[in-house]
Amino acid sequence: MNKPRNQAEFPTPEVTTGPLAGSSRVYTNPKAAPHLNVPHREIELRPTAMEPAVRVYDCSGPYTDPAQSIDVETGLPQTRKAWVTARGGVEAYTGRDLSPLDNGGATGKYLAREFPVRHRPLKAIDFTPPSSLRDTPRVNGGRNQDGAASVSSPVRGGGVREAGGGGKAAKRTPVTQLEFARAGIITDEMIFAAERENLGRAQALPGAEERHADGESFGASVPEFVTPDFVRDEIARGRAVLPANINHGELEPMLIGRNFLVKINANIGNSAVASSVEEEVDKMVWAIRWGADTVMDLSTGKNIHNTREWILRNSPVPIGTVPIYQALEKVGGVAEDLTWEIFADTLIEQAEQGVDYFTIHAGVRLPYVPMTASRVTGIVSRGGSIMAKWCLGHHKESFLYERFPEICEIMRAYDVTFSLGDGLRPGSIADANDEAQFAELETLGELTKVAWDHGCQVMIEGPGHVPMHKIKANMDKQLKECGEAPFYTLGPLTTDIAPGYDHITSGIGAAMIGWFGTAMLCYVTPKEHLGLPDRDDVKTGVITYKIAAHAADLAKGHPAAKIRDDALSRARFEFRWEDQFNLSLDPDTARDFHDQTLPKDAHKVAHFCSMCGPKFCSMKITQEVRDFADGLSDNERADLQKQADEASAGMAEKAAEFKAKGSQIYLDK
Amino acid sequence: MNKPRNQAEFPTPEVTTGPLAGSSRVYTNPKAAPHLNVPHREIELRPTAMEPAVRVYDCSGPYTDPAQSIDVETGLPQTRKAWVTARGGVEAYTGRDLSPLDNGGATGKYLAREFPVRHRPLKAIDFTPPSSLRDTPRVNGGRNQDGAASVSSPVRGGGVREAGGGGKAAKRTPVTQLEFARAGIITDEMIFAAERENLGRAQALPGAEERHADGESFGASVPEFVTPDFVRDEIARGRAVLPANINHGELEPMLIGRNFLVKINANIGNSAVASSVEEEVDKMVWAIRWGADTVMDLSTGKNIHNTREWILRNSPVPIGTVPIYQALEKVGGVAEDLTWEIFADTLIEQAEQGVDYFTIHAGVRLPYVPMTASRVTGIVSRGGSIMAKWCLGHHKESFLYERFPEICEIMRAYDVTFSLGDGLRPGSIADANDEAQFAELETLGELTKVAWDHGCQVMIEGPGHVPMHKIKANMDKQLKECGEAPFYTLGPLTTDIAPGYDHITSGIGAAMIGWFGTAMLCYVTPKEHLGLPDRDDVKTGVITYKIAAHAADLAKGHPAAKIRDDALSRARFEFRWEDQFNLSLDPDTARDFHDQTLPKDAHKVAHFCSMCGPKFCSMKITQEVRDFADGLSDNERADLQKQADEASAGMAEKAAEFKAKGSQIYLDK
Repeated sequence: MNKPRNQAEFPTPEVTTGPLAGSSRVYTNPKAAPHLNVPHREIELRPTAMEPAVRVYDCSGPYTDPAQSIDVETGLPQTRKAWVTARGGVEAYTGRDLSPLDNGGATGKYLAREFPVRHRPLKAIDFTPPSSLRDTPRVNGGRNQDGAASVSSPVRGGGVREAGGGGKAAKRTPVTQLEFARAGIITDEMIFAAERENLGRAQALPGAEERHADGESFGASVPEFVTPDFVRDEIARGRAVLPANINHGELEPMLIGRNFLVKINANIGNSAVASSVEEEVDKMVWAIRWGADTVMDLSTGKNIHNTREWILRNSPVPIGTVPIYQALEKVGGVAEDLTWEIFADTLIEQAEQGVDYFTIHAGVRLPYVPMTASRVTGIVSRGGSIMAKWCLGHHKESFLYERFPEICEIMRAYDVTFSLGDGLRPGSIADANDEAQFAELETLGELTKVAWDHGCQVMIEGPGHVPMHKIKANMDKQLKECGEAPFYTLGPLTTDIAPGYDHITSGIGAAMIGWFGTAMLCYVTPKEHLGLPDRDDVKTGVITYKIAAHAADLAKGHPAAKIRDDALSRARFEFRWEDQFNLSLDPDTARDFHDQTLPKDAHKVAHFCSMCGPKFCSMKITQEVRDFADGLSDNERADLQKQADEASAGMAEKAAEFKAKGSQIYLDK
Repeated sequence: MNKPRNQAEFPTPEVTTGPLAGSSRVYTNPKAAPHLNVPHREIELRPTAMEPAVRVYDCSGPYTDPAQSIDVETGLPQTRKAWVTARGGVEAYTGRDLSPLDNGGATGKYLAREFPVRHRPLKAIDFTPPSSLRDTPRVNGGRNQDGAASVSSPVRGGGVREAGGGGKAAKRTPVTQLEFARAGIITDEMIFAAERENLGRAQALPGAEERHADGESFGASVPEFVTPDFVRDEIARGRAVLPANINHGELEPMLIGRNFLVKINANIGNSAVASSVEEEVDKMVWAIRWGADTVMDLSTGKNIHNTREWILRNSPVPIGTVPIYQALEKVGGVAEDLTWEIFADTLIEQAEQGVDYFTIHAGVRLPYVPMTASRVTGIVSRGGSIMAKWCLGHHKESFLYERFPEICEIMRAYDVTFSLGDGLRPGSIADANDEAQFAELETLGELTKVAWDHGCQVMIEGPGHVPMHKIKANMDKQLKECGEAPFYTLGPLTTDIAPGYDHITSGIGAAMIGWFGTAMLCYVTPKEHLGLPDRDDVKTGVITYKIAAHAADLAKGHPAAKIRDDALSRARFEFRWEDQFNLSLDPDTARDFHDQTLPKDAHKVAHFCSMCGPKFCSMKITQEVRDFADGLSDNERADLQKQADEASAGMAEKAAEFKAKGSQIYLDK
């Protein structure tokens, strides 16, 4: 743990550093771009294993690498910034000034400290923020500790430049990963992400490709090895996204798509009632340590802007937000007071900070709202209910829907990926797969094509609460309506009767929908429906969803997935306890559980566990059986095979014979 | 909690008593047998709910009824004994004497106290325990505190009586539930169990039958209401079992079958390394409190006999065991030294105590053993590995297989249900659905028919470790090979990489296989593969499996399942926090999680939670939306419908229009 400095009001966030037990962070350099250092986690095995180390996907960032120095006050190195600027199409500008409203009007001791370092944001060269935004009153709300420019200034240029104004995305200089992909250009981000997906397994475990599992992928096309060009092609088709805001230089790029490893998202964020900036930064680092591939900052209270800045500057994973939450704070929590101007301003505010994907609830259309009136649980999405209230309050179509092309233009200019929100998702088993839900999904399909047309990357959010027999219909309809854009689901929860355990009710649904084709699973913690998750809840949620995602990869037949299961199973069979712990998703808990019954170090090499005790271990007996079987002669083996073939006839005879003898129980003398 | 008496060496087991929060134990009297008091749990709702109390299945026994006095030293009332004796076909006898070996040779302070009360066991009148058993040296190993007969005496009669000796089950006086069912006789047990399955919902919630869910049952035939004759018919067909040893008078009968509610089993039991008798009795009561439908006592250390007696005399749920564990203890842990005599003697010992079902690994045949040699994790079933070792050690076919008809005769005489063990189940993802596993399953199918022929009830145990895409094949093959005998599976675990969280890896598989048709799910606790579960682990395992079983009931379309989900969802939507807690599977945890963020009592009626805070609750906004929608005129409604119909055309036009205008982002003035 790095130590907090002596700042009573706002201490430096403490974050957990150091490798996971038995693991080290290693890097490979892709052939296509040797300057890239692509991280993996390598789990070392005992020498007795006679096996190479096992490489697994690593999204923990530099925090688990003891060779990297971590300073939360400075943020992570912006390594990626050079890749972005090198290929052109973007330019730095002074950017929007911080308004007190951005932090919910917090002042004095209630205002969280601004992140100490300011960076000039990048934007597409052919984009100019709406001119009237310049007229909004500005202040410099935060202390500026490092002397970076913070004076309010008008955004560069004015009006829409010709390159952007032509309207046809194909004519513009590429900015988004989708635009590059369509132009046939493989970006550094694509090479980086491709390398991660392969888990370095060709190098680490020769012959691994022969061991891969069978599977049922329901039409997905997971390749034997992921190449940069495969990545480019998947992005160009819209079947994968690589969420990477040009202003998120700290990012280690990753992929979300049906033909890649299933990913998971962890939600964090403060609310008006609980939590602080420090807690949220710590939760982010903690979540990625255990395997969160992306993190959503769902803060809703004050200090939203500053909290997000601390998170982004320290995050190696894509950060997602729901901009309407902050927009609502800016209008005092009154949904009807929301305006396009405030919303657009919020989009630009967050895009300049580097948010990688935005949840936009543009599918909550006025005519769909009354469809929810007969539901058991109405509208449970926060964003959905805000927009529903706005629509009804004004009796007008949603401005998110009406202004969708403009939203696209803003998001395209920073390569913010769409996560089209399912504002009408079911909030209970009773409401699953109903008219409102599916009407919205159809609209999301329509919006997907519009966003693609503007050069934007798109994924689609999904439910929610769905009983098992209705899950597959969600996946099938999403693929059909949304042109195979990646599906990103919350759970779904398969029953409503277990608050306190909704990581499990939803983990079941998540594993299934991941198998069916969902690209990213949004975690649910044990506190769902009850309270704000703390650190322990975040970890439990992440581990549960890593299980679901991995179970899905296995069932889909992902060629890399089974390697870890098999390595752990061999460790288990051979009583390599330490290897079993270290290969598990949570080595600390596995070791702790073992130690509760058998704490001594000697037991770590013992050929038994407390389940059966020393004399009675099935694993031990099996080894003896195996030794015996190995010693069988060919004749003996043939004889056994014959017996096996005759098996079915035997018992029927035996039973008849027994009855003929009068069913008497006899004993050997 | 009842207070322990002052007995230093062996205190009275402390067990948890009293109702669950918000619940009370209520009883109904079935029309067909008004003398039966059938328990249910009734969850009271706040008056503002304007809803009747919700009745749920209750397997917690008298422990949750404050009107019942609990004395663990006496055991539960043997109410059922009168039903058994009233219908004849059985007789009391002195029974087998306790041998020191029955408790693993424990003496002095290492010997757990014998249960204070002795009961004369019942057996079928046409059955005589094997005569040579009388020649085994006997002792009275325990103290006999209440003066009940404990003098050693030979078992009554000798040789096989004519009624049993004829061999045709149909000619014999019925003893087992299967024999009664085939004879067209509806037993009290069947009436009792039928009543439980209906959850008293016709009385409690008029109109409930109209609300029931759709579902996909994969060929199951779950009836709208369960009648006693339906139960009889399902048992007669072998498609359900009612595990009810005639010596388990404390039992509240229940059903295991594909057309009934999915059940769960909790494993408890000491081992040579850890745990004590008191802990195990407490665990049993604790497990059924949270919803375990049956409990298996898997003890393997010393004191097996006495531990089991304490458990049985205090258990209202069926108790299962794996007799080969105790038999192995009797031969000092050396598998090759096992004999038919010792095994048969152990069966009778346990049958006389009242064990309701036996796991018998009779499908582990000699020719199948070498099929496991190339597995990643060999044979992981304890019983399976013992038998494999025996077979190879003697190079002989398994005596369990060879003597199977005799085993049937013993089990039939006490109505012990078969749980045909899957000794060759896979111990890892790598070994799922392999030749050895399926060869054994085919043999289990063969043995099922033999057991049925002897009048025995049968269920079939299943895996284990199976990736999601291979689960359904297990269910389909089991149904086909085993004539629809109930399937009883352990998990299955859907990945091997999460020791410490195997309740979750397996909960996913359990929910799925339960949906596909498995009748009972054997729980897995977080300690699986790592250590012996403690009290907390037992609860976590039970709740996780209640979730899986209930998710399966929902997906199958069980007509009663959705009632509880809907009641909880309404409570959630209406901010009836206390109702939400009380309707959940674990009210204590739900309340505790809520209180961690919002501890004040006032918050229990607050219309918000800490997730979103007071200004920002989607549930609250939805209520406003609903009020608004209710106020729409018919014209307004028609207009909205029109907009909905035109939805798909709209955005394409809008996007084209936007581009035609030069993709300029405009702002309302």
